[in-house]
Amino acid sequence: MKAGIMCVGTELVTGLTQDMNALFFSQKLVHQGVFPKTVLFVPDDKYDIARVFRFLLQDTEIRLIIICGGLGPTDDDFTKEVIAEILGYQLYFDEGTWQKIRQFYQKIRGIEPPENNKKQALVPQGAVVLTNELGTAPGLKIEVEGKQIFVVPGVPREAEFFWSFIQQSIHEEERLPFYRSKILKFCGIGESQLAIFLQPLLRSLPADVRFAFLPKYGEIWFYLYAYQVDEEKRRKMDEHLDLIARSQYDFLFSPYGDTLEEAIGKLMQAQNLTLAIAESCTGGLLGDRITNIPGSSRYFDRGYIVYSNRAKVEELHVPQNLLETRGAVSEEVALYLAQGARENAQADIGMGITGIAGPQGGSEEKPVGLVYVAIADATQAEVKKYQFGGDRLMNKRFTSQAALSMLFTFLRRRKTA
Amino acid sequence: MKAGIMCVGTELVTGLTQDMNALFFSQKLVHQGVFPKTVLFVPDDKYDIARVFRFLLQDTEIRLIIICGGLGPTDDDFTKEVIAEILGYQLYFDEGTWQKIRQFYQKIRGIEPPENNKKQALVPQGAVVLTNELGTAPGLKIEVEGKQIFVVPGVPREAEFFWSFIQQSIHEEERLPFYRSKILKFCGIGESQLAIFLQPLLRSLPADVRFAFLPKYGEIWFYLYAYQVDEEKRRKMDEHLDLIARSQYDFLFSPYGDTLEEAIGKLMQAQNLTLAIAESCTGGLLGDRITNIPGSSRYFDRGYIVYSNRAKVEELHVPQNLLETRGAVSEEVALYLAQGARENAQADIGMGITGIAGPQGGSEEKPVGLVYVAIADATQAEVKKYQFGGDRLMNKRFTSQAALSMLFTFLRRRKTA
Repeated sequence: MKAGIMCVGTELVTGLTQDMNALFFSQKLVHQGVFPKTVLFVPDDKYDIARVFRFLLQDTEIRLIIICGGLGPTDDDFTKEVIAEILGYQLYFDEGTWQKIRQFYQKIRGIEPPENNKKQALVPQGAVVLTNELGTAPGLKIEVEGKQIFVVPGVPREAEFFWSFIQQSIHEEERLPFYRSKILKFCGIGESQLAIFLQPLLRSLPADVRFAFLPKYGEIWFYLYAYQVDEEKRRKMDEHLDLIARSQYDFLFSPYGDTLEEAIGKLMQAQNLTLAIAESCTGGLLGDRITNIPGSSRYFDRGYIVYSNRAKVEELHVPQNLLETRGAVSEEVALYLAQGARENAQADIGMGITGIAGPQGGSEEKPVGLVYVAIADATQAEVKKYQFGGDRLMNKRFTSQAALSMLFTFLRRRKTA
Repeated sequence: MKAGIMCVGTELVTGLTQDMNALFFSQKLVHQGVFPKTVLFVPDDKYDIARVFRFLLQDTEIRLIIICGGLGPTDDDFTKEVIAEILGYQLYFDEGTWQKIRQFYQKIRGIEPPENNKKQALVPQGAVVLTNELGTAPGLKIEVEGKQIFVVPGVPREAEFFWSFIQQSIHEEERLPFYRSKILKFCGIGESQLAIFLQPLLRSLPADVRFAFLPKYGEIWFYLYAYQVDEEKRRKMDEHLDLIARSQYDFLFSPYGDTLEEAIGKLMQAQNLTLAIAESCTGGLLGDRITNIPGSSRYFDRGYIVYSNRAKVEELHVPQNLLETRGAVSEEVALYLAQGARENAQADIGMGITGIAGPQGGSEEKPVGLVYVAIADATQAEVKKYQFGGDRLMNKRFTSQAALSMLFTFLRRRKTA
């Protein structure tokens, strides 16, 4: 089954409030084998609500419509009025609904509801009223032309409350023509390169199985999906995904965790290792990301944010003359930082980062975005040069991502070795 | 002028990724007097992209269309193809665009782009190519039937990059009489407290001028807005905002910069001061935020991420017995960290952070979310206790925010003193 979601609210289209409801319903629907094929946001405007509601009604693929918001007691709420008008239903005052609104209001505020709340007891003929246990605006369920329409309030808690009604209306036989495989997450490889490596396997996919590459700041997320799937095809898709995973296993971190930081945490703990870092241009971002993982104190010992040259010399014993002859942004300094952090902390692994985040500080020889990342343990050391092309924040982000990728690869190799 | 926004991506309609782009463009458009009357999300599906694109084209009120995403090099990207087909334009291979893609790829990766990137050099006839300085997918500008259509990549930083092109195309006479004042940003004060302080001034606002408080991770953003505004009313709103700003000037950081980090940077430089920090539970996040500001190397000397107790002792001379008697998360340790960082670096100001980010590590006496932040210069030191109630990432974020607020207040006082 396919679905459409419409959220009503001027605050949504003007970016004053970030949507939570469409996101919530999308995730829930997909989980139930229902594909939300169109998600729309419209202002508190009769004309726009009507136009978008008709658009959803006219889509023959859509069998479930969720409409969210515009059910309040004030003058800028008219979702119900528009829906009733388009469907050709009369609105009537529902005494039973009004009593429930009164009870709720009295329970919460201890007083009678104001007169304008009566508006919330108006119900289109033919609609089933769904009692709202968390607020005054009731939900509605309307069946029309083979479509199920749910109208729910826009307050996130209340919208979520109505999910159980929607879920109940999804019948087993309507579920899951749609199937999405689990997500494979790669690092240390670009989207185009990965696509080329995977091409032979992707070409052998059944015709109606689709794939998606999602680049995320230096990671590539990949998954398979299809609209018409039975148990057999589901199994085949999973097998295919497994082949894809195994073919590029060196770059694949998702078997170890949801995030690269988490994957690294698992590998660090499995090998019982500790880490110390020294970062210059990332200014603490690498440490921040590593310590986003609960329990990272078990493997992350300390970090140095050596922003000034003096800090590099004083904290990590980078030779002053090296800074003068090779410059702070150099292979040698990155290696000194990695080794220095490791030795100071008596950690198993050390990492060093030096670079030019920009926008100032670049030169012809060493342009903005030039970065060196080094990694070292007791027996080996490695340094990589990167040239990023972003602005300051992007260069910091890409640098931390490159460092995490290097660390992941290092740990994977170490484990295999 | 009214606008429509369409974002393409199966990850968006299935709730895998939360939209950032529509939110960004909505906010920017509103600020320019353009009202985004419909915002839509569609999967990577030719039929749905086509259907929604036609829907936007047919809306006679819409004069500006922003289409975001589906411009990648892989087989699941076909936004351009669908648009060209619907508009009846041929796609041609643009050699100039291809050369720019090659240059960008070589600059970033040091190698030739793979063959499939050539797809990104396909341009619909009649479209103007907008060079992407942050990625390989170029933007497009198409004028058709009195509508301006912008097609931009879905990677958020790249999408944002193209805003300047869109902005340039909005003419003065097309702007709506909607006016939103500039935003006042406060720190170190809660929303309710600020609302109470501002009440007398807010009560004297003209009837149709509205106001909004937006709490943002410990900052409060405030602005005025109205729908029908002429020059005279605009001036009055600005005057009123100015009164509001002056009445709570101690908590107001926006006159010094767009972000709190920027405001701090300006004050640090104006007073010619240097800073060193030592952070435990934030793991580098404070350093990261401070160094997000270009030129922060002029005042930020170094940071210590002292995650282990041994690091606190070795790097910042926190007495071992203090850790044993008072614990790592204590007022005393925060002060030692601030003073130690300052003295090690011979900096003017030192800051220290210690706390329990969670989810583990809490106790009845010291629950998750307990944080101490200290600040010190040569003559004075101050420590504050916080109890946050978020998850690990929220607690890190709130802690860094509290530290920045303290530093801002410290610098403002110092300046006034």
